[in-house]
Amino acid sequence: MTLTGMLPIGAADIAATEGTMKALNPATNREIEPDFTLGGRAEVDLAARLADEAFDAYSHTTLAARAAFLERIADNLDAVRAELAGRAALETGLPAAQLEVEAAKAATQFRQFAEVVRRGRFLQATIDPAQPERQPRPRMDHRMQKIAIGPVAIFGASNFPISYSVAGGDTASALAAGCTVVLKAHNAHPGASEIMARAIRKVVQECGLPQGVFSMVRGAGNAVGEALVDHPLIKAVTFTGSEGGGMALYRRAQRRPDPIPVFTEMTSVNPTFVLPHALSVRGGAIGDGFAERMLVNVGQACLKPAILLAVEGPGFDALREGLSARIASAPARTMLTPDIHGAYRTGLERLEAGGAARITEGASPSADLDGRAALFEVDGTGFLADSTLSEEVFGPAALLVKVRDEEELIAVAKSFRGQLSAAMHMEDADAALARRLLPILERRTGRIVVNAFAHPQEVSHASIHGGPFPATSDSRFTSVGMSAIDRFLRPVSYQGFPDALLPEALRQDNPLGVPRIVDGA
Amino acid sequence: MTLTGMLPIGAADIAATEGTMKALNPATNREIEPDFTLGGRAEVDLAARLADEAFDAYSHTTLAARAAFLERIADNLDAVRAELAGRAALETGLPAAQLEVEAAKAATQFRQFAEVVRRGRFLQATIDPAQPERQPRPRMDHRMQKIAIGPVAIFGASNFPISYSVAGGDTASALAAGCTVVLKAHNAHPGASEIMARAIRKVVQECGLPQGVFSMVRGAGNAVGEALVDHPLIKAVTFTGSEGGGMALYRRAQRRPDPIPVFTEMTSVNPTFVLPHALSVRGGAIGDGFAERMLVNVGQACLKPAILLAVEGPGFDALREGLSARIASAPARTMLTPDIHGAYRTGLERLEAGGAARITEGASPSADLDGRAALFEVDGTGFLADSTLSEEVFGPAALLVKVRDEEELIAVAKSFRGQLSAAMHMEDADAALARRLLPILERRTGRIVVNAFAHPQEVSHASIHGGPFPATSDSRFTSVGMSAIDRFLRPVSYQGFPDALLPEALRQDNPLGVPRIVDGA
Repeated sequence: MTLTGMLPIGAADIAATEGTMKALNPATNREIEPDFTLGGRAEVDLAARLADEAFDAYSHTTLAARAAFLERIADNLDAVRAELAGRAALETGLPAAQLEVEAAKAATQFRQFAEVVRRGRFLQATIDPAQPERQPRPRMDHRMQKIAIGPVAIFGASNFPISYSVAGGDTASALAAGCTVVLKAHNAHPGASEIMARAIRKVVQECGLPQGVFSMVRGAGNAVGEALVDHPLIKAVTFTGSEGGGMALYRRAQRRPDPIPVFTEMTSVNPTFVLPHALSVRGGAIGDGFAERMLVNVGQACLKPAILLAVEGPGFDALREGLSARIASAPARTMLTPDIHGAYRTGLERLEAGGAARITEGASPSADLDGRAALFEVDGTGFLADSTLSEEVFGPAALLVKVRDEEELIAVAKSFRGQLSAAMHMEDADAALARRLLPILERRTGRIVVNAFAHPQEVSHASIHGGPFPATSDSRFTSVGMSAIDRFLRPVSYQGFPDALLPEALRQDNPLGVPRIVDGA
Repeated sequence: MTLTGMLPIGAADIAATEGTMKALNPATNREIEPDFTLGGRAEVDLAARLADEAFDAYSHTTLAARAAFLERIADNLDAVRAELAGRAALETGLPAAQLEVEAAKAATQFRQFAEVVRRGRFLQATIDPAQPERQPRPRMDHRMQKIAIGPVAIFGASNFPISYSVAGGDTASALAAGCTVVLKAHNAHPGASEIMARAIRKVVQECGLPQGVFSMVRGAGNAVGEALVDHPLIKAVTFTGSEGGGMALYRRAQRRPDPIPVFTEMTSVNPTFVLPHALSVRGGAIGDGFAERMLVNVGQACLKPAILLAVEGPGFDALREGLSARIASAPARTMLTPDIHGAYRTGLERLEAGGAARITEGASPSADLDGRAALFEVDGTGFLADSTLSEEVFGPAALLVKVRDEEELIAVAKSFRGQLSAAMHMEDADAALARRLLPILERRTGRIVVNAFAHPQEVSHASIHGGPFPATSDSRFTSVGMSAIDRFLRPVSYQGFPDALLPEALRQDNPLGVPRIVDGA
């Protein structure tokens, strides 16, 4: 596929006129070809209008047709996998082999959502039959199902340039729900974004769907994102990225004359608690395993375990040694963008300013945008004294917190803001402390993991990638896993309808064979 | 029960010190005894802290214990029913017999939510078992369930002083979810509010639950409501009332450092479309039925059908006559409050200023706060020319829209903002037009009704009392019906847990017998 640099908006390739940009190869810190055109309000308006025009037809596709569409997207992502991974590697500094795995997972996700669509449970079809004999008043027939919320704006993230970007779970789940999509490409990987967008758009055309089902926009600075969030035809927004960026979009959407749902997944330090018996039995292995996970994707991951907490005692030194050894031997590796690289260095300074000691560093950088691994340590009192120590540093850094006793561990646990995940390493003999920690973690996280590191994430039915603020802007939803589709659905009740006028899933003879709740059972 | 005028906050009766108020009897426009003390930030803070302290224990009650608690509340509401209805009648001008029915329904709602809790489907327990042999990487065991979101602030509404107030569906569904509740009483019925709050609080004590499970606050103006929405320990808000009031709370909550979910149910004109064959066959009966429903509760209902639309043709005059006759014979009846009475008069003036003709009026008022029924008419062109005509007038007024042809009917349908409900009156021969209207109504409403009036609402599994903005602030939820509980729940995933540490609903042998989704099926 030759990159055109144009914006795929509906069936057209638009040469946008708000300037051009080139991708940066972060490994060399040099720009690479070709030029990508930048759009503005006009392109956003065009994409939103097409998405709105396509909505009625697309949201009423049959479950079978929609599932087939998602599967063909998966197939087409597989077809471009090598090219996509190669270009993404150039644009992100991440290894092509890793990106091939990421692309395969992205395709799998579309297939999983196809299965979700085919099964039809997401419709939550619910029937309360008429009760003509009921006293004092008969009950009319009531039926309910979920329908798509409307055209959705999705913001691609930078750190997983495929599975949290154009072909990511947000796109898959929104299309599965029956929503049309306007995707705002991340400027850190414009070429990879174009490859994915054209792969999806090709399937829209092959399936004979209205052109507005999927469009991609891109622009300089925040103008395009703001125009998208403001657009009256856009009915929901999803975003993965920084707390600052996410909250700016969130608050902007809430200032609209008609506020719309915005799901932003923002920041998490994924605290890892090592309970005393586990510490004494296998502190070194836990330290090593923690560091290994922490370094994945050069620490540029929402699920990076960033803070490791343990009570001083037998095994603590082994824990610290396991951690230190792995981090000391970590090569410096290319970070995603100059901004992220700069913010990482600032973040390390913030940890020191907050009173944490830099106790180990990885290998020295050899290129401009290399990120050097780092391990910090602070005691529980110091940690509780400065809340900036519990804030995320995006990159290959970790903070070891040496806690005085179990009471201080509980106090530290209570000090965390909302998190995507938390982990406990425990032996059976730690059960009593685990039971004390559990309700504290439940109130603060979307996922709790025992004896493993929160990363990597499964994409399945019970997966939750969410959590209380500031992990996300709405703890009632998830952006990963099959229930990610719930963000894009709203219920409609049909009362007293003639059978032929009902949506198929609600008709008396259940022609789609979807699971249904009848009278609550 | 002797009214004390104090605030039931936890186990205490607080004599709040921010002044006092008396209830107004709107039928006489005179104040009635006793004094009710008014609170401020201090009382809100006390109630929120108690709700937070009670949360861990209450949210972890067994399903059986929580269901029993809800049923005992229902029993206690039944025990105070006559007294409650009598006091509410004095404070609202609504008939005591109607309020007894409302109180009985409120109790029934608690029993229905007890059944929801006992069945446990609301937990959405989901299990993805371990796959140790999976390639390239084994899958860990993942389990998910919904848990309570935290302490909730609920704003009582004025128009249904029992079932949308202290003992309403918001309270029942929040308690069912496992949330603790701080209720902000509406000042239009302080005595009824006290009776309900003390009835609930008594059951909290009898069941040995922590005192902070339920508290009630009250204050002058907006200070108490604002303090509640701002309070850092409050994790969700629900409100039923005006668009102005609802949006002020919504926007305030979104400005918090940590935004929280706010569900506001605000405004709806519940448009009713009479399709041509139904019009010609039974226009008069439809006009009569519409007017009857419109007048329920002196038109002070969120589901009041306010706008009736039909294409000029056979049956139109009969429709207008049916409507006019019923409205002309309607007695003037007491409205809820001086503010509502004043806003109703202003609303009638707004309809005239917008170009609608006042074609019929009900009987003349005989008391200060009597609301006089009124019927207005405008043609489709006039309706489309002034968007204020599609805004709600809270009270016993209706607008008949005479539309030129089917195309104009479609254009009018598309002009509506979000609605709680819409209705179509149709014969089989109207099916083609109904199919054109349906997707337009689906995008704009939470409930669509055929050949009946949207009011009254069923409270069941398929019930939806929600809809796109401005009907509510989040179309993905409902405030009435069993899925109202979803507003107060968030998912948590448990990964790699030892069985004994899992929540009961997720343990391997399913000791609670709740429905579970295993591997998506």
